[in-house]
Amino acid sequence: MNPRILEIRQGILKKNDQLAHGLRERYMDAGVCVIDLVSSPGAGKTAFLEETLRRLRETHSVAALVGDLATANDATRLARSGAPVRQIETAGICHLEAEMVERHLEGWNLNELDFLFIENVGNLVCPSSYDLGEDMRAVLMSVTEGEDKPLKYPTIYNSSDIAIITKIDLADAVEFNRKEAYENINSVRPNMKIFETSARTKQGIDEWIEFVKSLRETKSKKVNTTS
Amino acid sequence: MNPRILEIRQGILKKNDQLAHGLRERYMDAGVCVIDLVSSPGAGKTAFLEETLRRLRETHSVAALVGDLATANDATRLARSGAPVRQIETAGICHLEAEMVERHLEGWNLNELDFLFIENVGNLVCPSSYDLGEDMRAVLMSVTEGEDKPLKYPTIYNSSDIAIITKIDLADAVEFNRKEAYENINSVRPNMKIFETSARTKQGIDEWIEFVKSLRETKSKKVNTTS
Repeated sequence: MNPRILEIRQGILKKNDQLAHGLRERYMDAGVCVIDLVSSPGAGKTAFLEETLRRLRETHSVAALVGDLATANDATRLARSGAPVRQIETAGICHLEAEMVERHLEGWNLNELDFLFIENVGNLVCPSSYDLGEDMRAVLMSVTEGEDKPLKYPTIYNSSDIAIITKIDLADAVEFNRKEAYENINSVRPNMKIFETSARTKQGIDEWIEFVKSLRETKSKKVNTTS
Repeated sequence: MNPRILEIRQGILKKNDQLAHGLRERYMDAGVCVIDLVSSPGAGKTAFLEETLRRLRETHSVAALVGDLATANDATRLARSGAPVRQIETAGICHLEAEMVERHLEGWNLNELDFLFIENVGNLVCPSSYDLGEDMRAVLMSVTEGEDKPLKYPTIYNSSDIAIITKIDLADAVEFNRKEAYENINSVRPNMKIFETSARTKQGIDEWIEFVKSLRETKSKKVNTTS
């Protein structure tokens, strides 16, 4: 990479890290659990998130920010779940940055939220470099995109905390090699927790919902420890 | 975007355009037809290209460059076709640049080639900005990734010359909405030529092979016009 652009890029990343640090403190103060979903375009983030919002709303207060280069289609889809949703249109930027998240949270009272989901731009490269202050980053991998993606995009798998295999109902149709997928994920990030899900058949959704609920339980709310 | 990084980025793009211009002249002199394949990760570029190389080799001299952030897996797969293939490992860069292409062509005699295929990094954003001197850019869209991708990633569709729908054998399994896909492609780029293909069942491959052969015919070889 060009040395001048590298230097400026490092400055941008540093500034992003500072903003993300501030966001993380705000989330902690408010006791909101923040989960960032990353994947290639078309891996099924929106369908998965719609089902997640619909299920969590039964017992918790949830909201979502959704990033795209253009269109507000995903926000419209997600709003069907009944949760408050805002679209972040990045105008050509191929990832979300902490500044965009901060700007789109304006006017929302984080203290009233239990969960905030962030759907990143569909891209397996650049989102890995931008901390959004999230508690957990989940990388989604559809059975249709090939078992080799963890090897070809190692940084996004390394920077994620868990992996979610999506469209598992299509596994037979695409001859998905489960063993190879697990080996590839684990070779990049050993012992990574992996979910197998389908937003269509709801397979694996119960387990996922239980997991995020327990994740929030373990996040000590400042309001609890100081009261 | 940060004004300083914007300025430097414009400089990089300008330099890339100059290099691409030089490549385009070299391709023209050599009479080689150069086709760049772009798509999201997992849309099936490698399987499609493997079948294309295998078929074209029966009558033409073909070679390929294949870009990835990491691993040389795709070059190994493509080499099974018998065509000369070189891997470009971008080391974290999310797209190919003209300079990378130029460097990896060293030692190849372009005059001996009829076709050069370039498989770009799986990414629907950044490759759209980097001209590689190609005659044609083809954007691949698998039926599994959702009909809305042209609307969400308009620049890559606008900067491509044709669209190739892949994994068409899975259309029923994923309830692919053909009409909506065509409407979305055409709303971004009216009258774009669209192929429907499957590397597994070979559907649409004959039509595609005939198309690229005719594309090369219309590219006047300098060797013909000067002899």
